[in-house]
Amino acid sequence: MQQHTTTLTFTTRGRGLSEITPEVRRWAEAQGLQTGLLTLWLQHTSASLLVQENADPDVQADLERFFTRLVPDGDPLFEHTAEGPDDMPAHVRTALTTVQLSVPLVDGRLALGTWQGLYLWEHRRRGHSRHLVLHLLGA
Amino acid sequence: MQQHTTTLTFTTRGRGLSEITPEVRRWAEAQGLQTGLLTLWLQHTSASLLVQENADPDVQADLERFFTRLVPDGDPLFEHTAEGPDDMPAHVRTALTTVQLSVPLVDGRLALGTWQGLYLWEHRRRGHSRHLVLHLLGA
Amino acid sequence: MQQHTTTLTFTTRGRGLSEITPEVRRWAEAQGLQTGLLTLWLQHTSASLLVQENADPDVQADLERFFTRLVPDGDPLFEHTAEGPDDMPAHVRTALTTVQLSVPLVDGRLALGTWQGLYLWEHRRRGHSRHLVLHLLGA
Repeated sequence: MQQHTTTLTFTTRGRGLSEITPEVRRWAEAQGLQTGLLTLWLQHTSASLLVQENADPDVQADLERFFTRLVPDGDPLFEHTAEGPDDMPAHVRTALTTVQLSVPLVDGRLALGTWQGLYLWEHRRRGHSRHLVLHLLGA
Repeated sequence: MQQHTTTLTFTTRGRGLSEITPEVRRWAEAQGLQTGLLTLWLQHTSASLLVQENADPDVQADLERFFTRLVPDGDPLFEHTAEGPDDMPAHVRTALTTVQLSVPLVDGRLALGTWQGLYLWEHRRRGHSRHLVLHLLGA
Repeated sequence: MQQHTTTLTFTTRGRGLSEITPEVRRWAEAQGLQTGLLTLWLQHTSASLLVQENADPDVQADLERFFTRLVPDGDPLFEHTAEGPDDMPAHVRTALTTVQLSVPLVDGRLALGTWQGLYLWEHRRRGHSRHLVLHLLGA
């Protein structure tokens, strides 16, 4: 049984989904294991991870629109506003999604479904540098 | 330390929760390990996994009603409509829940709480064949 | 490769977030491993786990306000009311968040980001005794 870890850094360009499947898959499948578990841990509280359809880009735009309506920027409900009208919505959006995913590795490949892509979801309006810790355990 | 993997397939009958605890537990506890970690990975983007109360069936009906109101079918907000009025809501509902769970195995048994059940949540109106990858690591 | 498990019990004082980072970190980092994966499993269906900002307490108050508005107590939509007007909202809030987290251990420390804290979120109005199973795997 082996363990491998690394940290990938992604520079986002403001609110929206960025597919990270290629970078994650490349690192995970390069460690030469046949069976294992890959854990992704995003070290932030205003960006999150998402598994979604990677075929039609309208899906990503609709997800963004839904979350923007559900958690409006500048909502007077919020008192934590010192970091901008999009900061507290970013925390709520992160709470509604996740910062962690664990994907099995089977036959040397991540067990993603045909239409599944791994996404980094930036919830702040401005771009940020986001750190993703990867931990792979297996043989 | 050992690893075991399998894929279970569930045929859903349209939107709603189906308890999968017995099938998951049976496979996990049959591998003969005492301590470990079982990861469930659902290979879809319009169905999800949920841990919920397995006692009163009203809880499941209420969850369904809440999500139907929160993410209405046919919402004019959505542009991804080619696959039907329930397709984009299915993606949103999946984003609001999860496709992955990792449950510890302790003393040879999954460490579920007394009232916890594992559910597969079909978010499309029509039934589908859903694939669940299981990965068990332990000793 | 080693495995360690324990169960921590937290007594909540009613609805709200309680930071559990110190207790979780203390146990995980005391097992003497350098690299590994820590899984937290909360054995309940009306309380959940959350990773959020641990700097400004307004963030926690705003999260609470948002979820209270999104899932109102006593909503006439709900039929599962026998356990009180806050019971079904507690199940929905748990479904919208999570009962499981897996955090990598790197260089002997949990790989939390600078501003990330681990929280137990009690969703019932009254306090409860909540059981958190911890499973650590690594070397």
